[in-house]
Amino acid sequence: MSLLIIGTVAFDTVETPYGKVERVLGGSGSYASLAAAYYTKPRLVGVVGEDFPQRYLSLLESRGVDTLGVERAPGKSFFWHGRYETDVNIRETLVTELNVLETFDPKLPGDYADSRFVFLANIDPALQLRVLEQTPGAVLTMADTMNLWIDIARDALEEVLRRAHIILLNDSEARQLCGTPNLITAARRILEKGPRAVIIKKGEHGVMMFTDKAVFSLPAYPLEGVKDPTGAGDAFAGGFIGYLAGADDCTEPAMRRAVVAGTATASLCCEDFSVGRLQSADAGAVAARIAGIADITSVDFAQLARV
Amino acid sequence: MSLLIIGTVAFDTVETPYGKVERVLGGSGSYASLAAAYYTKPRLVGVVGEDFPQRYLSLLESRGVDTLGVERAPGKSFFWHGRYETDVNIRETLVTELNVLETFDPKLPGDYADSRFVFLANIDPALQLRVLEQTPGAVLTMADTMNLWIDIARDALEEVLRRAHIILLNDSEARQLCGTPNLITAARRILEKGPRAVIIKKGEHGVMMFTDKAVFSLPAYPLEGVKDPTGAGDAFAGGFIGYLAGADDCTEPAMRRAVVAGTATASLCCEDFSVGRLQSADAGAVAARIAGIADITSVDFAQLARV
Repeated sequence: MSLLIIGTVAFDTVETPYGKVERVLGGSGSYASLAAAYYTKPRLVGVVGEDFPQRYLSLLESRGVDTLGVERAPGKSFFWHGRYETDVNIRETLVTELNVLETFDPKLPGDYADSRFVFLANIDPALQLRVLEQTPGAVLTMADTMNLWIDIARDALEEVLRRAHIILLNDSEARQLCGTPNLITAARRILEKGPRAVIIKKGEHGVMMFTDKAVFSLPAYPLEGVKDPTGAGDAFAGGFIGYLAGADDCTEPAMRRAVVAGTATASLCCEDFSVGRLQSADAGAVAARIAGIADITSVDFAQLARV
Repeated sequence: MSLLIIGTVAFDTVETPYGKVERVLGGSGSYASLAAAYYTKPRLVGVVGEDFPQRYLSLLESRGVDTLGVERAPGKSFFWHGRYETDVNIRETLVTELNVLETFDPKLPGDYADSRFVFLANIDPALQLRVLEQTPGAVLTMADTMNLWIDIARDALEEVLRRAHIILLNDSEARQLCGTPNLITAARRILEKGPRAVIIKKGEHGVMMFTDKAVFSLPAYPLEGVKDPTGAGDAFAGGFIGYLAGADDCTEPAMRRAVVAGTATASLCCEDFSVGRLQSADAGAVAARIAGIADITSVDFAQLARV
C-alpha cells in the first residue's frame, strides 16, 4: 500500500577509518526511501537546492522511489559533514548547514494525501507535524527523531510523540528523552505518551520493539566491515515501514517481521559509503541477508523445554 | 555429566541505586555453581578463609552444589567491594582483598579428576591452568577472564586461550585483548589462538557466540528492575555449561540452547542482591524465564521469506 516518506535529501561529506567521500547523496529521506523501495514504491517528500544534481534524483527514481514530492528551492541543499572514529560507534559532526531546510514548508502533491503509511524521518518535528496534518487517512504513522530536536524543539517533539503511531529513536536518545539509563523504563514512559509502539535502535546491538503487550528484541547482523554507518538508522526505518506497507499489515507479528526486514537493509547500508550498497544490492541480496539473520538467531526452544 | 567449576568464593559488599549489602556471599564460583545447579550437580573448587561462615557453604550444598572441593585456609576470605551508578552498566571497584587467594594452589579431590566438563571461572589464569592439568579427561573446558588478567597476567592468559575449548569474556575485555573496537574481528582473532568457540557477553545487549562455522546472537532478557548485576556474567556461564553438562551434549546446536539457559539464569541473578534470586528461584522460574526469552525473540522467518 501507499507509503509516504518525508525526510532530508542532502549532500554528505563523510570520513571513516576506511576513507572519505565528499558531497555524496545523503539525508534521512534518501536512505529511508531507498530501503523502503525493496518492499513497496515509496513517495518521497523533501527539498533540495539549486545545486543538487539531477542524477541523484534520477538514482532514486531508478530504484523505484517516486520523487514527485521532492521540491527544488532557491539556495543551497542541506549539507552534513561527519567523521567516525576507529570505533565507528563514535562520530563527530563537523558541519551542519540547513540551507533550504530553514524555510521548507512541506506541501504534499495532491494524490499523496491518501497515503496509508507515513514515515516521518529525522527532520524538524514541526515539519513532521505539517505532514501529519496533510495525511489524515494514514493507518500507520511512524516518526524518527534525534538528540538535536530533544534539545531545541521539545514541545513540537512531544506533540509528535502523542500523535504518531510508532516512535523510533536510538538508545542514547531514549535515555536522554526520558532521563533514565534503563531502556525498558524509557520505552514504557514513551508508550505512556500515546504511541502504540516504541522502537529503540541500538546500532551494533540490534533493535528492541515495545508495545503494550510485548517486547521484541533482535540482534544486529554481525558485520566485520562497517565502511560507513551513516544512514543505517534511516535504512532500518525504511526497510521496516516499507515491509509493512508492502504487506499492508500493521499487526504485531508483522511488525516483528518488519524489524528483520529493516535490520537487513540497515546492515547492507553499512557495507559501503553513502547509498552505494542500497544502490547495488538487489532483492536477492536482501533475501540472503534476511536468511543470514535467521541463521544467526536460530535456536531450538522446543528441544530446550524438554530438558 | 560431571561438571567441575573453579572460581572465587567470597565476601561481597555491593552498593547499587537500590541499596547496599555488606559481606554477603559472592564470588565467581558461588554464582556459577548456583546457576549450573539448575541443570546438573556441579563440583565447586575454591578457597575460603577462617572467617567464612559455614551457612554460606550449607546454602550452596542445599542448592545441589558439591562443596567438597572448597578448601578452608588460614587467613581471611577474598573480599570485593563495588559500587554501581544509576546506569548499572557503570561500576567502580572500591576494594579488592585477595587474602587466602594469594597463596591458593588448587588440588582437586581424587574423584574430581574424572570431571568431563570444566568451567574455569574468573580467577588468576595460573590457577585456571593448574586445574586444566588435573582434569586431563575433560571433553569440554571453558574459561572466563577479566581485564585485570589481561593487564597483569597476559602470558598465563594466552596459555589459557590456547588450551581451553571455549573462551568467555565481556565486550570491553574482547576489545582490550584484541586491540580492536569490532567484536566480530576480536572474536575471529581469539578463535585463531585455538579455542573452538568464543562467547562475548554484552550485558544488557545479550550474548554473541562465535565458532569456526557460525555466529549465534541472542539478546538479553529485558529487565526493568536490575537490583544488582554482580555475578550476572558468572550466572550466565554456570547456566551455559551446566546445561551442556546436564544434556551431555557439546554440539553447536546444544551450545545455542545453552546460551539461552545461561541468559535465563543471568537475568534472574540481576533481580536481587547477592545470590538472593538464584537461591529462591526454582526450576519453574527458570523454565518461565526461558519461555520469556522465546517470546521476546520469536519471529516468523518463514512468513517473511514469502514476501
